[in-house]
Amino acid sequence: MGTILIAYASDYGSTEKMAAAAAEGVREVAGMTALVKKAEEVTADDFIASDGILFGSPVHMGGMDWRMKKLIDTVCSGLWMKNSLNGRVGGVFVSGGGFGGGGGGCELTMLSMLNNFAELGLLIVPLPKMTADYKHGGLHWGPYGRSADIDMKNGGVSAEVLALSKRHGKHLARAAKAVKGADIFGE
Amino acid sequence: MGTILIAYASDYGSTEKMAAAAAEGVREVAGMTALVKKAEEVTADDFIASDGILFGSPVHMGGMDWRMKKLIDTVCSGLWMKNSLNGRVGGVFVSGGGFGGGGGGCELTMLSMLNNFAELGLLIVPLPKMTADYKHGGLHWGPYGRSADIDMKNGGVSAEVLALSKRHGKHLARAAKAVKGADIFGE
Amino acid sequence: MGTILIAYASDYGSTEKMAAAAAEGVREVAGMTALVKKAEEVTADDFIASDGILFGSPVHMGGMDWRMKKLIDTVCSGLWMKNSLNGRVGGVFVSGGGFGGGGGGCELTMLSMLNNFAELGLLIVPLPKMTADYKHGGLHWGPYGRSADIDMKNGGVSAEVLALSKRHGKHLARAAKAVKGADIFGE
Amino acid sequence: MGTILIAYASDYGSTEKMAAAAAEGVREVAGMTALVKKAEEVTADDFIASDGILFGSPVHMGGMDWRMKKLIDTVCSGLWMKNSLNGRVGGVFVSGGGFGGGGGGCELTMLSMLNNFAELGLLIVPLPKMTADYKHGGLHWGPYGRSADIDMKNGGVSAEVLALSKRHGKHLARAAKAVKGADIFGE
Repeated sequence: MGTILIAYASDYGSTEKMAAAAAEGVREVAGMTALVKKAEEVTADDFIASDGILFGSPVHMGGMDWRMKKLIDTVCSGLWMKNSLNGRVGGVFVSGGGFGGGGGGCELTMLSMLNNFAELGLLIVPLPKMTADYKHGGLHWGPYGRSADIDMKNGGVSAEVLALSKRHGKHLARAAKAVKGADIFGE
Repeated sequence: MGTILIAYASDYGSTEKMAAAAAEGVREVAGMTALVKKAEEVTADDFIASDGILFGSPVHMGGMDWRMKKLIDTVCSGLWMKNSLNGRVGGVFVSGGGFGGGGGGCELTMLSMLNNFAELGLLIVPLPKMTADYKHGGLHWGPYGRSADIDMKNGGVSAEVLALSKRHGKHLARAAKAVKGADIFGE
Repeated sequence: MGTILIAYASDYGSTEKMAAAAAEGVREVAGMTALVKKAEEVTADDFIASDGILFGSPVHMGGMDWRMKKLIDTVCSGLWMKNSLNGRVGGVFVSGGGFGGGGGGCELTMLSMLNNFAELGLLIVPLPKMTADYKHGGLHWGPYGRSADIDMKNGGVSAEVLALSKRHGKHLARAAKAVKGADIFGE
Repeated sequence: MGTILIAYASDYGSTEKMAAAAAEGVREVAGMTALVKKAEEVTADDFIASDGILFGSPVHMGGMDWRMKKLIDTVCSGLWMKNSLNGRVGGVFVSGGGFGGGGGGCELTMLSMLNNFAELGLLIVPLPKMTADYKHGGLHWGPYGRSADIDMKNGGVSAEVLALSKRHGKHLARAAKAVKGADIFGE
């Protein structure tokens, strides 16, 4: 048995839908379950009890939602200090209006969350381009759900993006199983 | 007359000292003044009244302090929506323990703040290597104040880093004067 | 009189068209001219004779074209060593297939070129969202020309992206004029 | 049996020494071997025959050596197109003078190589802070070998950095074994 912790922040529900889809994907992997929580509700014990971690956030000004950052500063920092999570796996997904067509800052948003994962000693699981539905909302670092059109009219994330998020959850769960007990960073 | 807004977060006082030093540098430029405020206290009007903006933060898990991110999400987002700050200037500085000797994530921390500035349409002022005291704590994006030694023993930022921060403030003030009224992004 | 150096690499012509459009924008600014050169042909003297620099590149695996990197390593490094370009202005633009809809690595590609500019002491000119045609291919760091559809069928960059690139060239030229002689980083 | 491909560029030998140390670490893992090659000599078949990939580069102007980028553009691009490497593991290391004490651009240099790995579908292996000798030259993304003092006097990388590089090689080899055959990204 293993658990993937899915921590997210959401304003209008797009990231929340992606989190739920990722949880579905996790549960398709034998022996794996998902714990889905809003950023404010995640505890140190939730991290410690997990085999893998997915962070999801809206893109705000080219960076993650401040509630995700508060979670990192107030909870992840302490886990880093104690070397608690080394050798587990991590992944990210984001949503955003994407004004301009260039992702609207989604890449640096993903990297800002992955930077925290590298500090925590997590192996990072990317999103390969051959993944089904990648063309509808993929970035190599994870799913990117575009929630608005080029005139900033909000339409919500598409069914294809949710299918892609589900796949990403499945990938994370498989990766967590693969490295469990491998003692990659041990003596 | 012009004003540089210096917004910062600080845990143990290192970033705060760098902010104060930067303000000194601003005031050395004829006609320029500095408004130094903690992240939680900065208002939209403070941004609108400024000619340039300096953001300072500790490095937490390879990213800015969450209070800076909250300021960005709750105040800067609205200014972005209204295109309020285009054509002004911006710069950054950070402090951190820097465990490992590679900057401990200072570069991506600076970029995460600069990403917000680019969204706001600010011209970004870097820190050239020929600046006096650069060798004691410079990164090309801005001053980096190392606050601990390689064993994570906290010693606070050095006098040289504060002198460098002062220089950076002076650079920002001069840049703000240079571009004032230039209408770089106008019709 | 002032000059903007536009250095670029191009595989199928998209980046080259954006470079030509940017040059047009530069020339619309009174007293400003553009020097457009392929990466392999740019010399140290071209940089020294310029008041501002635009770098354009296709996105290859989430990074700039290697010919641009060779230019940086073999020419810009020496200019950094001598502090030759401090206080001028710089900007970037990129093109790419953009498979996946999240920009396909355009953001980190832009940042990899801007990192070099920060080292060189250039003030960085972003692309504000209010710029005409931004919605058709803008990122806050500069124009992003999408050259293929979601099935990776190459269609070339759009007229709107070229118009946006022209605007970006104009912005650079104005910024170069504004800071000329300002001695931002001097004693 | 498994193989880690170690591809690198080196100017004065620092990165080359780190590559050799990493290879030693790989070989300490039962059943694992290392193939160490200069960037110019690496072929597509070398990548295909490997179970994991380590890229090493000097930091040049905040980015990787252009020979590494040429390898990425001319060899990795084709492997990306064919989805040849999904599900393997990757890691990075860099060396640099580090003028200024903030890593001199080492972080974005590492990220520019990791961006390519994410595109290729590799799981990314970070460097946890509890690793022995981390304090002498670690960044969370991989070993950073400082090759000069604050006055840019070249002294070469330290014995501690080489020990850290060896550890990183060992981590990569273990991670490659752990995920081999796991079909993380399959149907």
